[in-house]
Amino acid sequence: MKKLINDPAHVTDESVEGFGLAHADLVAVHTDPTFISRAGGAVQGKVGLVSGGGSGHEPLHGGFVGAGMLDAAVPGAMFTSPTPDAIAPATVAANGGAGVLHIVKNYTGDVLNFETAAELADADGIEVRTVVVNDDVAVEDSLYTAGRRGVAGTLCVEKIAGAAAERGDDLAAVTAVAEKVIANVRSMGVALSACTVPHAGVPSFDLTDEEIEIGIGIHGEPGRRRVPMAPADEITSMLTTPVLDDLKLASGEKVLLLVNGMGGTPLSELYVVYRAARAIIEARGGVVERSLVGNYVTSLEMQGASVTVLRLDPELTELWDAPVTTPALRW
Amino acid sequence: MKKLINDPAHVTDESVEGFGLAHADLVAVHTDPTFISRAGGAVQGKVGLVSGGGSGHEPLHGGFVGAGMLDAAVPGAMFTSPTPDAIAPATVAANGGAGVLHIVKNYTGDVLNFETAAELADADGIEVRTVVVNDDVAVEDSLYTAGRRGVAGTLCVEKIAGAAAERGDDLAAVTAVAEKVIANVRSMGVALSACTVPHAGVPSFDLTDEEIEIGIGIHGEPGRRRVPMAPADEITSMLTTPVLDDLKLASGEKVLLLVNGMGGTPLSELYVVYRAARAIIEARGGVVERSLVGNYVTSLEMQGASVTVLRLDPELTELWDAPVTTPALRW
Repeated sequence: MKKLINDPAHVTDESVEGFGLAHADLVAVHTDPTFISRAGGAVQGKVGLVSGGGSGHEPLHGGFVGAGMLDAAVPGAMFTSPTPDAIAPATVAANGGAGVLHIVKNYTGDVLNFETAAELADADGIEVRTVVVNDDVAVEDSLYTAGRRGVAGTLCVEKIAGAAAERGDDLAAVTAVAEKVIANVRSMGVALSACTVPHAGVPSFDLTDEEIEIGIGIHGEPGRRRVPMAPADEITSMLTTPVLDDLKLASGEKVLLLVNGMGGTPLSELYVVYRAARAIIEARGGVVERSLVGNYVTSLEMQGASVTVLRLDPELTELWDAPVTTPALRW
Repeated sequence: MKKLINDPAHVTDESVEGFGLAHADLVAVHTDPTFISRAGGAVQGKVGLVSGGGSGHEPLHGGFVGAGMLDAAVPGAMFTSPTPDAIAPATVAANGGAGVLHIVKNYTGDVLNFETAAELADADGIEVRTVVVNDDVAVEDSLYTAGRRGVAGTLCVEKIAGAAAERGDDLAAVTAVAEKVIANVRSMGVALSACTVPHAGVPSFDLTDEEIEIGIGIHGEPGRRRVPMAPADEITSMLTTPVLDDLKLASGEKVLLLVNGMGGTPLSELYVVYRAARAIIEARGGVVERSLVGNYVTSLEMQGASVTVLRLDPELTELWDAPVTTPALRW
């Protein structure tokens, strides 16, 4: 295993510390327990947004803390759910008196730990609502999940709900917008290579030089099937077609297309995938109104990509376009 | 070779096409010959900025076209200099009547081809000046270079000269600012793995599981030495110490610290490197005033990172902070 780390036991702490130093204008890093909040603290009167999950998916979620998006993020150890004793103080830090929304990816550990933290916050008099993101159409149940997994669509939920909170929506309204995004976003990914979790020291699964895993999870969980390596256009079709089928995309509908890198694939290849996915959407009569291409919801150094499609309406488009100022997303 | 591409012969064209579709609000992609310009065309009365070089280093340079940075970028084939017949029309497209600055990384092919293109533009009545970026302290001459190579410091030159052009500086003043950045920026990189150029199909060099290459070039050119794999703090010292020595950084001086990923290294590891580099700078009495961490000047899927330090003065800081709206850099 060759990685730019020191002791595998400290990689998350050292990485988060570096992140906090590099972005001190935007975020504050807390230790014991570890969480990230906005540099300026909670915005009084605004609904607070908190997300979190295992580390190894950077910039998710810490990179999305800032004006127009999250108020706090809770990184667990690598590929390990954060604990309630970290989520609870993050919830307090995010509370501006208008309640807090927990945005949780659908993994059993995350769901349970955010639930416990919500109960702790409730006991402190903070109203908490929760949405669970489950955009991955690849498999119905998975290694760490009952129901579908939450993957790159989470970025869309955090951006759009964040904009709704910023414009002054109350907790019920922010929750409703988040649920609308979840109802209209679908994703599917592919792995060309596995990644290595530092404390494990060996790749999380084996792929030969001739095969790829269609429907991979962001922790390397098994997908739908292994197939022989194929041209990018064919692979992109294997991802985009199930996404559009599941979304029941109708001709004339407008969408946001997010092509997300798993961490180890060159940006130039992500644009090749984007080109192919866009052609498939347009062949169905869909209209790509907004786009995002890059490494946003990663699996350490895994090579591969995912395709996310969000059905847009005027409200979602307006909230997507609203200003955002975070370490990883800014406009 | 497993890559998200179709025919290796078309990967650059398909990637640039996807890039143009994804960012049509910011850039326009031209074919035959291939170059990228601002969506709105040249800004009348403003000095135009053009850069370019072999593809495979994305988002450099196309990702930096937009308000506050470049006016046009010319991508060559993978790791291959763009030709004068592409650079010349890009120069015309960037010309708003106030002349054009060519920002060239120091590789023999790039320098020669930009020189020829400048002569062509001059024959068309466009005044062109050229700066050559040579920030890599690793080696004095290299595989494709007489003198030092140009690497991630190029981003600093493009951002800061772009801001100078945007505020209305004339061609001599923009050139002087670019030269000031070049005089004050140094970089050095490390590779943990090689990358594979699509049309070659095999890794560009061999590294065992136990060794790394200190001072690597962004095309996999040999660096200073191969050493055994080491903790991130030690590797970061091997990069940062020569950079600071060459820069002759004095106590109390303010710097910008850019930790750049080579493409295949997780963001979490880049922050571990950032933390270590910052500590080394501070131990010398340096003050890290500005920071950037991410994959900006890459070598396809190479695993590794580079450390860039730019000595700041109030003018450079102000120009760095000025607004920028490009696909890959925005604030």
